[in-house]
Amino acid sequence: MTERALQGLGVSAGIRTGKAFVYAPVRLTDVEKKKTQDVDTEVERLREAKSACQAELQVLIEKAQRTLGEEKAVILKGQISFLQDPTFYPPMEKLIVSEQWTAESAIHQVVTQVASLFESMKNEYMRERAADVRDVGNRMFAQLCERKGTQLSDIGEPVILVADDLTPSDTVQLDKNLVLGFVTRIGGKTSHTAILANSLGIAAILGLGDGIDQIRHGDELLIDGSTGNCILSPSAPTKESYHALMQRDEAEKAELLAYVDRDAVTKDGFRVELAANIGTVEESASLISQGAEAVGLYRTEFLFMGQSQMPDEETQYKAYRQVAEAMKGRPVVIRTLDIGGDKELPYLDLPKEMNPFLGYRAIRLCLDRKELLITQLRAILRAGVHGDVKIMFPMISGMEEWRQAKEIYDQTREQLSQEGIPYADSVELGIMIEIPSAALLASRFAKEVDFFSIGTNDLVQYTVAVDRMNEKVAYLYDYFHPAVIRLIKTVIDASKAVGKWSGMCGSMAGDPIAAPLLLGLGLHEWSMAASSLSKVKKVITDLNRSDCAALVERILEMDTAAEVREALLAFKP
Amino acid sequence: MTERALQGLGVSAGIRTGKAFVYAPVRLTDVEKKKTQDVDTEVERLREAKSACQAELQVLIEKAQRTLGEEKAVILKGQISFLQDPTFYPPMEKLIVSEQWTAESAIHQVVTQVASLFESMKNEYMRERAADVRDVGNRMFAQLCERKGTQLSDIGEPVILVADDLTPSDTVQLDKNLVLGFVTRIGGKTSHTAILANSLGIAAILGLGDGIDQIRHGDELLIDGSTGNCILSPSAPTKESYHALMQRDEAEKAELLAYVDRDAVTKDGFRVELAANIGTVEESASLISQGAEAVGLYRTEFLFMGQSQMPDEETQYKAYRQVAEAMKGRPVVIRTLDIGGDKELPYLDLPKEMNPFLGYRAIRLCLDRKELLITQLRAILRAGVHGDVKIMFPMISGMEEWRQAKEIYDQTREQLSQEGIPYADSVELGIMIEIPSAALLASRFAKEVDFFSIGTNDLVQYTVAVDRMNEKVAYLYDYFHPAVIRLIKTVIDASKAVGKWSGMCGSMAGDPIAAPLLLGLGLHEWSMAASSLSKVKKVITDLNRSDCAALVERILEMDTAAEVREALLAFKP
Repeated sequence: MTERALQGLGVSAGIRTGKAFVYAPVRLTDVEKKKTQDVDTEVERLREAKSACQAELQVLIEKAQRTLGEEKAVILKGQISFLQDPTFYPPMEKLIVSEQWTAESAIHQVVTQVASLFESMKNEYMRERAADVRDVGNRMFAQLCERKGTQLSDIGEPVILVADDLTPSDTVQLDKNLVLGFVTRIGGKTSHTAILANSLGIAAILGLGDGIDQIRHGDELLIDGSTGNCILSPSAPTKESYHALMQRDEAEKAELLAYVDRDAVTKDGFRVELAANIGTVEESASLISQGAEAVGLYRTEFLFMGQSQMPDEETQYKAYRQVAEAMKGRPVVIRTLDIGGDKELPYLDLPKEMNPFLGYRAIRLCLDRKELLITQLRAILRAGVHGDVKIMFPMISGMEEWRQAKEIYDQTREQLSQEGIPYADSVELGIMIEIPSAALLASRFAKEVDFFSIGTNDLVQYTVAVDRMNEKVAYLYDYFHPAVIRLIKTVIDASKAVGKWSGMCGSMAGDPIAAPLLLGLGLHEWSMAASSLSKVKKVITDLNRSDCAALVERILEMDTAAEVREALLAFKP
Repeated sequence: MTERALQGLGVSAGIRTGKAFVYAPVRLTDVEKKKTQDVDTEVERLREAKSACQAELQVLIEKAQRTLGEEKAVILKGQISFLQDPTFYPPMEKLIVSEQWTAESAIHQVVTQVASLFESMKNEYMRERAADVRDVGNRMFAQLCERKGTQLSDIGEPVILVADDLTPSDTVQLDKNLVLGFVTRIGGKTSHTAILANSLGIAAILGLGDGIDQIRHGDELLIDGSTGNCILSPSAPTKESYHALMQRDEAEKAELLAYVDRDAVTKDGFRVELAANIGTVEESASLISQGAEAVGLYRTEFLFMGQSQMPDEETQYKAYRQVAEAMKGRPVVIRTLDIGGDKELPYLDLPKEMNPFLGYRAIRLCLDRKELLITQLRAILRAGVHGDVKIMFPMISGMEEWRQAKEIYDQTREQLSQEGIPYADSVELGIMIEIPSAALLASRFAKEVDFFSIGTNDLVQYTVAVDRMNEKVAYLYDYFHPAVIRLIKTVIDASKAVGKWSGMCGSMAGDPIAAPLLLGLGLHEWSMAASSLSKVKKVITDLNRSDCAALVERILEMDTAAEVREALLAFKP
């Protein structure tokens, strides 16, 4: 068989080869609508399917908690909450009674309706929830019928899993020792399946489309989870070249290991702080061993997502405390809730917006619904007793917002004081610089806040007026745009002028190419994905800050992002 | 009867009192679905209705062309094009034949379907087209039935028209001498009805909602088209206070008349250029008499909207030439097509976007579909022979875009040259400054472009990351935001440094409160709605620029938009 290349969306890095295991479970979509003569029996079957399904999910949740951490279990808990939702199970019973349908038909009908309701939503996160609904439906359905087709439990040797779509609960069940990687027909970058694959460290390619039909059970596959390349029946030379690539990756990893415990200091003695961005409590456990000196950005919104209601103060307190303790006294910058825009919370009932990126989100929402912010600040202040936490407000666009947030913070401390509840007394307060107006007023803010953290992802979007998720204009998104560099300089200069510090938690901080520029500008705290820490540290320790400062002088005279990038790539320390 | 106040959306200014004329025409919504025995007769009736309707529209179009100008007639032409659309009339005939429906039922069915298709669209402009479809439907229906209810032609004395909804063709038919103003139950700010009312100078309030049911035929009404206040059976004191308001408005207008022919020069001799923003050819006719020294912004997109296909070079040439000639040698800044985002052109088949304001629009679209830009540049260059036209590119975010546009411009000139077609030889080229990155790089751009025009509306939106159409965050939209002022200063300073000029065509330029600030910053060209020219000129001539410069120094030290506004309001020349 000759080699064939398929292209998908690489969502979880890793190069793997192995035999294809084509997963073909029974799915609810195969159900035909049938009537029954025996309504009572069907209602009983439906009830049993529901209980069995709930029990099965309970087991999976415990497994997920053990192997993946609480926040991944939340996805499965969300499925249980569907089972308990008044718009999910009760309509099924009702259909059996009123329409004399079979349990299978009733499940099919309701699941299809609810799932398509989710799919019709504009918000990508909500659309992805349709998969969760279908998952619950399939799960109930499987309880009702004799299983046929291949099952995940049939996997008995290391394979590359091939599936139309993996549900989150499929993914949680995967055994890392047997499933080297997986490829699917559908699915997007923000699907839970992608998040889970990453978290499990399983190489994964989603969205192969109809190309996937060429793969037969037992075929040899080579997949590259970073590029999305999926090669069917790879030739010997192909395998060799990928093997070389793997070896290079491995060698690089080994080399970088040496940097984990080193300080991030340039040759001429300029020391910066390397920090990690995290979204979940679990990620904090291994940060120190990966070389993180701090958590530069703790995205708390993941704690709020995939839930049926707001996490209470106690739940939040536990999470924040756990991260603070894991960092053993090193700084942990906790960003207050950055929700809204494309990140929706069903229980907040947010308005649909024409331009969500320019809308009601983050601090705007929290200053409007103050109880959200107060609960979170209480939890953070209490957790601060157990480590060095700092608080950062997102999406600040003007001084009033910062001052309002500060006032709520002061009131919250006062409240805790009066209640006699222990809380951290000296907590630094900072703001995200991710809106041009905030960057432009940095010298004003610097007098009042303790630190800045530059969020390049949003800052670039607003400065250049481009939604980087929009493929028609994404080419304009570039953090090397000279205007963006000027704003970054304005911010760093403003904080230095008053002896305070600036950090950066956008993806620019983790880009080794940007390092000479950021060093030259004098960035103090660099926060990035933990996996980038050693790589960036290596670059920093190889550089002289004085050379970088000279480079920045030249860059500030440049007209375009392309020139800047070229200069950075050509820069030899 | 006691006075009652109703609140609607003021869409066309003017205070008017008069008797209510409740317009209750027969509408297609009253149709019941009926079968026929005589298919042939029904098809014949339908055909006749279509022809009669087409003839009626033709008459209305000619009337509109005479009284309102070509571009308003375009709305009615759009209705004719519906009649000719293969998805509109043919399905009606088909329904009669296949379903044996009456002509009325067939019209009702198709119109409902097509209109709800439009209504389901996300784009507001497209949604508003549903009204046009219904209008054509009602028009055909009226041909089929004996008219009953009140008709617009029944109006025999000056009245205030009260209607559920006025269709664009209703509005065109209104006689200004008889219809003092109108109020409607439904309708939005961007509806054609609103645009037409403005253009006709008829005071109008839309969207009164169910409150409108309180108004009876013959009731006395007082309406204020700027505030949206509609007062039913106004008391004597209310009428008096509104009368005083009217008199104040009149007196102010009379006083301002004195400024029409004056130069816009401060007491200490700083001269600025006062220009007008226009959207249509017709508006240019009266500009000079209103005191405009130039057209600072000609929004060409209106020429492209409400059409079934792209206006060709000749059509554009004629429009641009007409404006250039109307201005008798004074400058006319023509902005190239600023379409996309929320302004859609059906024939361009633009993608749906999650954040249209950060998307594929204006120069981004024109650099991608170069034929659009080339055709427009050819038309402008040719029109330039007949006046002083300048070209301005919208939504420039970086130097590459400007340079690409410039290259296309050069090629277009070359093309015209080779074809031996006369064109203006020395046309100034400028860019809109409406994206923060362009403002930040003004000193770079200043070396290459001939002028800047600051578009504050978008610039504020991006700088502060706020969609001002989004009521949840509109409070953040403020052109007195200190960050915005810094950007404006950057732009003006950059152009002055190289001896070039900066203009402003956002609504800030027409705000008398902003005048001391803009004078202090040294803005050269101020472009605004023609109706604001005298008011702003009066303010300018009362000021000393040196005082304004001192004020600006103070403003640059302020933290918030509220402080800036307060300082401007307190500023006494």
